Formats: sequence, structure tokens, C-alpha cells
Amino acid sequence: MYQFPEAMKKLIRELSKLPSVGEKTASRLAYHIISNDRELAKSLSASLLESIEKISFCKNCFNLSDGDFCSICKDTTRDKNLLCVVEKPVDVIAFERMGEYKGMYHVLHGLWAPLKGLGPEGMKLKELFERIKKDNVKEVILATSSTVEGDATSLLIADRLKDMKIKATRLAQGMSKGAELEFADDVTLSRAFTNRFDF
Amino acid sequence: MYQFPEAMKKLIRELSKLPSVGEKTASRLAYHIISNDRELAKSLSASLLESIEKISFCKNCFNLSDGDFCSICKDTTRDKNLLCVVEKPVDVIAFERMGEYKGMYHVLHGLWAPLKGLGPEGMKLKELFERIKKDNVKEVILATSSTVEGDATSLLIADRLKDMKIKATRLAQGMSKGAELEFADDVTLSRAFTNRFDF
Repeated sequence: MYQFPEAMKKLIRELSKLPSVGEKTASRLAYHIISNDRELAKSLSASLLESIEKISFCKNCFNLSDGDFCSICKDTTRDKNLLCVVEKPVDVIAFERMGEYKGMYHVLHGLWAPLKGLGPEGMKLKELFERIKKDNVKEVILATSSTVEGDATSLLIADRLKDMKIKATRLAQGMSKGAELEFADDVTLSRAFTNRFDF
Repeated sequence: MYQFPEAMKKLIRELSKLPSVGEKTASRLAYHIISNDRELAKSLSASLLESIEKISFCKNCFNLSDGDFCSICKDTTRDKNLLCVVEKPVDVIAFERMGEYKGMYHVLHGLWAPLKGLGPEGMKLKELFERIKKDNVKEVILATSSTVEGDATSLLIADRLKDMKIKATRLAQGMSKGAELEFADDVTLSRAFTNRFDF
């Protein structure tokens, strides 16, 4: 049966390795890459190599970094007693965009998801607790996502912090700004109701 | 404000150039590439360069090829009097998978979409008509998609073929195999009704 040239099949195979890119999407991407001015293929290829060469993880907080330590960890004006625990580097970006937080971060690179076969050993947990002791952290803000896995991970960490007698807080859960009651899901509404506050 | 390292931002920018990949998807892909074993970045990078080096378009039918002419055009057992016109190289794959067609192909690399500002000049139309004359083609099967743009392109070509006194056929339109009447859209049902056939 007729098939694409070998190099095309290989490109499709490689692109299929990306998350949520199936064979059909990969074919579409590959066709776009091949049929355009080919500058894209060259610049994307170079950028891929540059990224694995230049980007590493901060040795302190495991955020993305272009050196041993990231710019947040190197910033001496930030409050080292306050530590915000997030799942991924993009979560740091989201938190920083808010512009109100002046503490440090710790990137877990994963969540505890027993149903997906992901245990706590995949996360940067050991490093978290070592850091908490070393840096004399006073409060740990558990800012994992409001999902089952995010909640489980935060609970797991909060349990350990209780033993260590360190204050642990979790991001508030309730209605999103601008959300309409009519379209709120049951769990969100239930949490917003439970955590209602006095005016 | 805190931002990702420069190489990471560049990788996200490059990935965003792919079709239907926005900045959020690009960030997710970039994070996957960075946080995995880095073999993916290397092999994808190499495959991109290899693809633009080795894959070209067949000089006869404009299908993907690893030489001047594709394997279908080089196959002397195929019927040169029968020509199937498709939009993209993946459409050739779909047609070949069917296994019943033994004629040739012509890949347009585009459709006539005036509403999107795409005129007929972007397609391999001139080459199509030259080929039809040169190869003494007896029938042209217009196998563009059953979309507004696909129909418009087929009509445009059929008009010219009429002047050239060459038989033009269009893929039948009607119910998909396995489709339930209840869920068929109006246009599909209307076409299936109009083109109903005797038992």
C-alpha cells in the first residue's frame, strides 16, 4: 500500500510523542511544516536544541532556569520564610502575574495520582521538606490545582507539615470572579457555600 | 515581572507557529519537551531538519516525494488516463487506503476560498490543466472535501474541463456508512435524498 516518504513518516512519529498530539494531528502539523517556507522547520529545530542546552531546573526550587538558580531564588528582596508549592513552572508564571506575592516557590513537577499510577516519589517532595527545614520557612502555601490530584497532593504535604509544626495554607476555593451561579458545578458551589464569609 | 528563561520563551514562540497551537498549548508542549528525558527534543529536532532536506513535492502530481517523482507517478502499472484531484497529500493516503483506485493523482495544495482571501492562484491549477493535455487524461475525478470550499474548487475545475471536453466526475455525496438518519445534518440528508438510487 502507498505510504508517505520515510522522512515524513518519521516526522509524524516524532510529533505524535508530544502530549495530546495523535497521529492525525501530527500529520497535519507535519504537512504544515513541509509545505511552508521551511524556515519554520529550521528555527523550530534550532530552538529545540537550544532549549535542552540552555534550560535547566533551579537547584533550589526546581523552576525553569537558565543557570544553577532561577531569578526568583536569586532575588534577595523576596521573603524566604514564605513558600508557595505549585505543580508546574507555568503555575509560577500565573502566580507572579497576580503581582501580590513576594515569597518563594517550590515546583513539585507532578501530583500524587494513585489512580494514574503516580506515587509521591515522582515529585520533588524530599527536596521540599529539606528546604523547609534549611530555610526556616514559616508558612507553606499549598497552591496545587483544585482537582482531585491537586487536593490529594496538598493533603499529603499538609499532613507532614502538621508533624513538623509548620503552618500550611491552601488557596481558597469558591466561585470564580464573574462566574454565574446558574452554571457553577455542584462541588464548586458546595465549597463556596461551606466557606462563605461574613460581610 | 517574572518570565520564563529566554530559550523557553523562544521555544514557546516557535511552537505557537504550528497550526491550531496557541500560546497555552505551546507552553504545555515546551514544558513536556524540557521536563522529559531530552531525547525527544533531540530526535524531533533532527527529524525536522531531515524532513526539509529529504522531502520534496513530486514534479508531476505535487504529492510528497523523496525524489523528483513520487512512487505513484513512477508506477508504470497505473492508469495514466484517470486522474484524481485532491487537496492535500493526506487525501492521497485516504484514497489509497480504500485500495480500489489504480489511476493517478494531482494534489492542489489548497482550495478556492474567496471568503478567506484564497484565490485560485495559490493552487496547482495551471499544472493540472497542462498535465491533463499532456497525459491525454480521459476522466478527472474531483475528490476535494464536501465543504463549501471543496465544492467551489471542484465546480471551478469542472467548468474548465467542460470547455476542454474532458469528463469530470465528483465523489458521491450522501449518508456515511453507519450514520443514523436521526443525527444526519440537513445538507447531507438533502443530498442523499436528491441522489437516491433505484434498487
